[in-house]
Amino acid sequence: MTLNEQQSAEIAAARAAAAETRRPTVPALEAMLYEAIPVLDHGFVRVIDYMGDDAAIVQAARVSYGRGTRRVQEDAGLIRYLMRHRHSTPFEMCEIKYHVKLPIFVARQWIRHRTANVNEYSARYSILDREFYIPSPENLAAQSVVNRQGRGAVLEGEDAARVLDILRGDAMQTYDHYAEMLNEDETGAPRDADRPGLARELARMNLTLNTYTQWYWKTDLHNLLHFLSLRADAHAQYEIRVYAEEMLRTVEAWVPLACQAFRDYRLGAVTLSAQMLAVVKRMLGGGPVAQPDSGLSKREWGELMGVLDTHNRHSRP
Amino acid sequence: MTLNEQQSAEIAAARAAAAETRRPTVPALEAMLYEAIPVLDHGFVRVIDYMGDDAAIVQAARVSYGRGTRRVQEDAGLIRYLMRHRHSTPFEMCEIKYHVKLPIFVARQWIRHRTANVNEYSARYSILDREFYIPSPENLAAQSVVNRQGRGAVLEGEDAARVLDILRGDAMQTYDHYAEMLNEDETGAPRDADRPGLARELARMNLTLNTYTQWYWKTDLHNLLHFLSLRADAHAQYEIRVYAEEMLRTVEAWVPLACQAFRDYRLGAVTLSAQMLAVVKRMLGGGPVAQPDSGLSKREWGELMGVLDTHNRHSRP
Amino acid sequence: MTLNEQQSAEIAAARAAAAETRRPTVPALEAMLYEAIPVLDHGFVRVIDYMGDDAAIVQAARVSYGRGTRRVQEDAGLIRYLMRHRHSTPFEMCEIKYHVKLPIFVARQWIRHRTANVNEYSARYSILDREFYIPSPENLAAQSVVNRQGRGAVLEGEDAARVLDILRGDAMQTYDHYAEMLNEDETGAPRDADRPGLARELARMNLTLNTYTQWYWKTDLHNLLHFLSLRADAHAQYEIRVYAEEMLRTVEAWVPLACQAFRDYRLGAVTLSAQMLAVVKRMLGGGPVAQPDSGLSKREWGELMGVLDTHNRHSRP
Amino acid sequence: MTLNEQQSAEIAAARAAAAETRRPTVPALEAMLYEAIPVLDHGFVRVIDYMGDDAAIVQAARVSYGRGTRRVQEDAGLIRYLMRHRHSTPFEMCEIKYHVKLPIFVARQWIRHRTANVNEYSARYSILDREFYIPSPENLAAQSVVNRQGRGAVLEGEDAARVLDILRGDAMQTYDHYAEMLNEDETGAPRDADRPGLARELARMNLTLNTYTQWYWKTDLHNLLHFLSLRADAHAQYEIRVYAEEMLRTVEAWVPLACQAFRDYRLGAVTLSAQMLAVVKRMLGGGPVAQPDSGLSKREWGELMGVLDTHNRHSRP
Repeated sequence: MTLNEQQSAEIAAARAAAAETRRPTVPALEAMLYEAIPVLDHGFVRVIDYMGDDAAIVQAARVSYGRGTRRVQEDAGLIRYLMRHRHSTPFEMCEIKYHVKLPIFVARQWIRHRTANVNEYSARYSILDREFYIPSPENLAAQSVVNRQGRGAVLEGEDAARVLDILRGDAMQTYDHYAEMLNEDETGAPRDADRPGLARELARMNLTLNTYTQWYWKTDLHNLLHFLSLRADAHAQYEIRVYAEEMLRTVEAWVPLACQAFRDYRLGAVTLSAQMLAVVKRMLGGGPVAQPDSGLSKREWGELMGVLDTHNRHSRP
Repeated sequence: MTLNEQQSAEIAAARAAAAETRRPTVPALEAMLYEAIPVLDHGFVRVIDYMGDDAAIVQAARVSYGRGTRRVQEDAGLIRYLMRHRHSTPFEMCEIKYHVKLPIFVARQWIRHRTANVNEYSARYSILDREFYIPSPENLAAQSVVNRQGRGAVLEGEDAARVLDILRGDAMQTYDHYAEMLNEDETGAPRDADRPGLARELARMNLTLNTYTQWYWKTDLHNLLHFLSLRADAHAQYEIRVYAEEMLRTVEAWVPLACQAFRDYRLGAVTLSAQMLAVVKRMLGGGPVAQPDSGLSKREWGELMGVLDTHNRHSRP
Repeated sequence: MTLNEQQSAEIAAARAAAAETRRPTVPALEAMLYEAIPVLDHGFVRVIDYMGDDAAIVQAARVSYGRGTRRVQEDAGLIRYLMRHRHSTPFEMCEIKYHVKLPIFVARQWIRHRTANVNEYSARYSILDREFYIPSPENLAAQSVVNRQGRGAVLEGEDAARVLDILRGDAMQTYDHYAEMLNEDETGAPRDADRPGLARELARMNLTLNTYTQWYWKTDLHNLLHFLSLRADAHAQYEIRVYAEEMLRTVEAWVPLACQAFRDYRLGAVTLSAQMLAVVKRMLGGGPVAQPDSGLSKREWGELMGVLDTHNRHSRP
Repeated sequence: MTLNEQQSAEIAAARAAAAETRRPTVPALEAMLYEAIPVLDHGFVRVIDYMGDDAAIVQAARVSYGRGTRRVQEDAGLIRYLMRHRHSTPFEMCEIKYHVKLPIFVARQWIRHRTANVNEYSARYSILDREFYIPSPENLAAQSVVNRQGRGAVLEGEDAARVLDILRGDAMQTYDHYAEMLNEDETGAPRDADRPGLARELARMNLTLNTYTQWYWKTDLHNLLHFLSLRADAHAQYEIRVYAEEMLRTVEAWVPLACQAFRDYRLGAVTLSAQMLAVVKRMLGGGPVAQPDSGLSKREWGELMGVLDTHNRHSRP
């Protein structure tokens, strides 16, 4: 992650501020506030603001006049009940705002989550920095041969070196051409006074998709957890998953009860189809079950066996 | 407005809380926090929480590392520019949460604004209070004869008395029957142990639409302003407009710069159709314009004349 | 269900229409088009329009130039894969529009599903019919003693008769008072020329929540299935569930492959929490598991046992 | 625009289909159905499906049992009334689905409109074609000196040639490197069997933002008109505006009454702030008004004079 001096100073100034409030506060999240948490080679996630805490979920569920909380045990039980039964509206009563720096191809996946508020740095209006994502060697994976949407073995030696050369070389070249076409110095004045610069809204099209962009991204806890359930998942692309994992840590600090319920009933949960459930019942009944007579396709059978992590005596694979 | 002792105590306790925060705070809104602002005969609006301030709009528009504000004059100018040109996303970066007590027929209009988070008090799960909206005499209006969706003259004397009798009598009777069918005391135990109570989810259907309900309602500033532009408007039904007007006052305290821009460019603004604009130009050119040759329907001509508030020499009505 | 002569004639005329189209059509759904499917005592559901079919899901998932379908077997497999892995966007490419007549207290639950387009009959502008929902005797349930949000035993004899008397009596009385306050005949002229009528937007507040309203409701298949997963579920209130069940039948006719996948992977599926999954694995491993050492609360243990429908040898309850 | 043989054949096959339907049909839009309307150098817009017509707006506004239409004159009047008073829900009852091929930097602007359903061609799963947008010479504009977000004079001669060389050269080079890193032939087999290919989800990051992507995009008429009001506007970037203009033509064919109302009350309309309105009234009153005593900033004064297109005797600039 690279912050220039001015950016670091602005963050420090924001962190130094203190005011009194009647609103609920969460010390563990206050401690993180404004700090840039590094992600990938130049990216970051920063918590900019938040509304509510675990108690606010309980308070909304009870439509309370006061804080609405009772004993910790009782509140935790209610939050777990709400999560388990997918009563999502109380979780929508907490809100969080992030500042994120991320490669454009990651931003394109991320923006598909529509129930959020977004302000992106505009390359139509401003000039992007000369920063692009270059994978670290251990993340240079080959195409998976079993999953059209996944990764296989890691590239090594010359193969890896060649890829890194291409990514670095093309990103630098296209950025330098972008700057040449813009023909602007830091003040917006032309570098070369003898020729016109290309409009920013046009010049940007020459940049590669690993160029970094930034945005403010604000959402409620319910939609954030939905985002995390998809993006902190093992099937998510590595480059977005690392953002999700850091954000999950901020959720942990912010609403620990809701976060634990989320881990138990979502992240660590499995959904069994009607047919899968029937198979599990037959297994529990003691009868041997094999894929051909299971009512499951080979693919689903494989998924179920993966879930059950099984070499138990009930199954004959 | 009626708050029982416990409710008042809970509100007082919430108001007494104080904590330190690094987040932006707005003293004028903090002063209002949690207080029940009376609306109609038994309703209220309470600000429960908020995120952001005028500076947060500027900060998001600039995708800043720090607070992002410059001179007040410059910030105000940017906020006015954003409002005038309908750049709505920076206004979405502020969020507010209300607790509202309101008659069910008002709640049914309100809920049509879909871009908000809502937790309503559940009459499936709990028992509603014996409170219903009865209009004050000056709000007992006859049906408008010119506008199928509006009000005309105020009812008086016996006509008014008869209406109030009906509204009061029916609300009390249906509520008492509701209580009889429920057959529950405050602890949930049967009042009359010899007969079963009807399920709450069924008994509620006997209540009239002026019964009060409550909800937590949370939205962002952009969507709140859209709500207020429709509901604080003269064409809105009186019973929802009074809520909108109180909420507008909370917005005034919260984000004064955005609120002033909203008054100038939305609440006090007018939209002229292509044809209306052509008429205004002809008037400014000095030529007389009459409805028949204006290209406007009589209705639109009337709307334009209303906007121009005119008896000026250009128009021949 | 009650349709007057004019309504029946209008429906018949709409059903008689026929035109040629290049769009995908679904004969089984065309057969249902415009027909009022009765629900409850006076309500109905009517399919007004639809866009897309099973093939449109496949076509969108493949971003095809043509119809995008291959062999039926392959299309079904893709649809099942999309449903199983919650790839929801292709299902959003199908759209359906209903006309629904329903009691207001049901409408209030229904409207909580925000991702739909709604046009409701306006009681601010028009006059509601004299129709209210009165439960049939077998649906007159007592409050559940185990579930604060559910029903218990059915009321019988005098208890039932008293409830029905109240519901009928109050609905008729409040409606008659509504009509009296309005003081309008069918043409909008005053019934009693000597007194003014109350504005419609006010008079409606005297109606009870079992009064019928109507709306046009339009949504995409993904959001419809989400609605059905909650409302066609055994935990939904009976009075909304019967609507969901009829709508599920229209989905069956419309997109049979997607509907079957929905039944298998949603309606008939179960979600096991991390702790529940651990218990199932221990059971499959042959070891005895009891609630106290299961890591599950009594409530969750009960839920798991319910799912497994078990009296198998692994569990010691 | 480039369609390969198979794509053209698939489109022709879809256009050849015909079925009977009870649904409303619009012959003028049916005539366009599935056809690729060329936009930019390789892009297109295709109408894939639609639901509803002008009458469906009227029908929903009236919550009708039948088609709900009356005399054409009356329907047009209602549609114009709904548009003028921003009663948006009846317009949401029409839905349209497009297949669009567009440069990635245009897609990034477009996706900011969140109230639509989208299925994008996945470069994580599939391989993008070797097609990129290169502006035609008359669209190679310099950065505007008055508007940080706009274009100025057109580049000419060597300046233009240099820009085109860069854009073409970099796009081809980065694409060829993308293909080299992928190391896949059309069947997915490695081109060079001696080395592994990079995962598709990684290789794509080397592409430039003018590479073409594709998506299915579906929205309702209200949200489409909002999109068009922003993107068919003179302030929109040329490269998205040309898409909006073609889509506006499809709306013209589809719902001619709504489209005319949209042109009159939105596209051709102007909004005057409270202060601007006061100035217009003073002008109409005959008094001279100058910027310094107008209550308008210089910028707003300029905007107002632009709207009034004025050199009339009332203003002293």
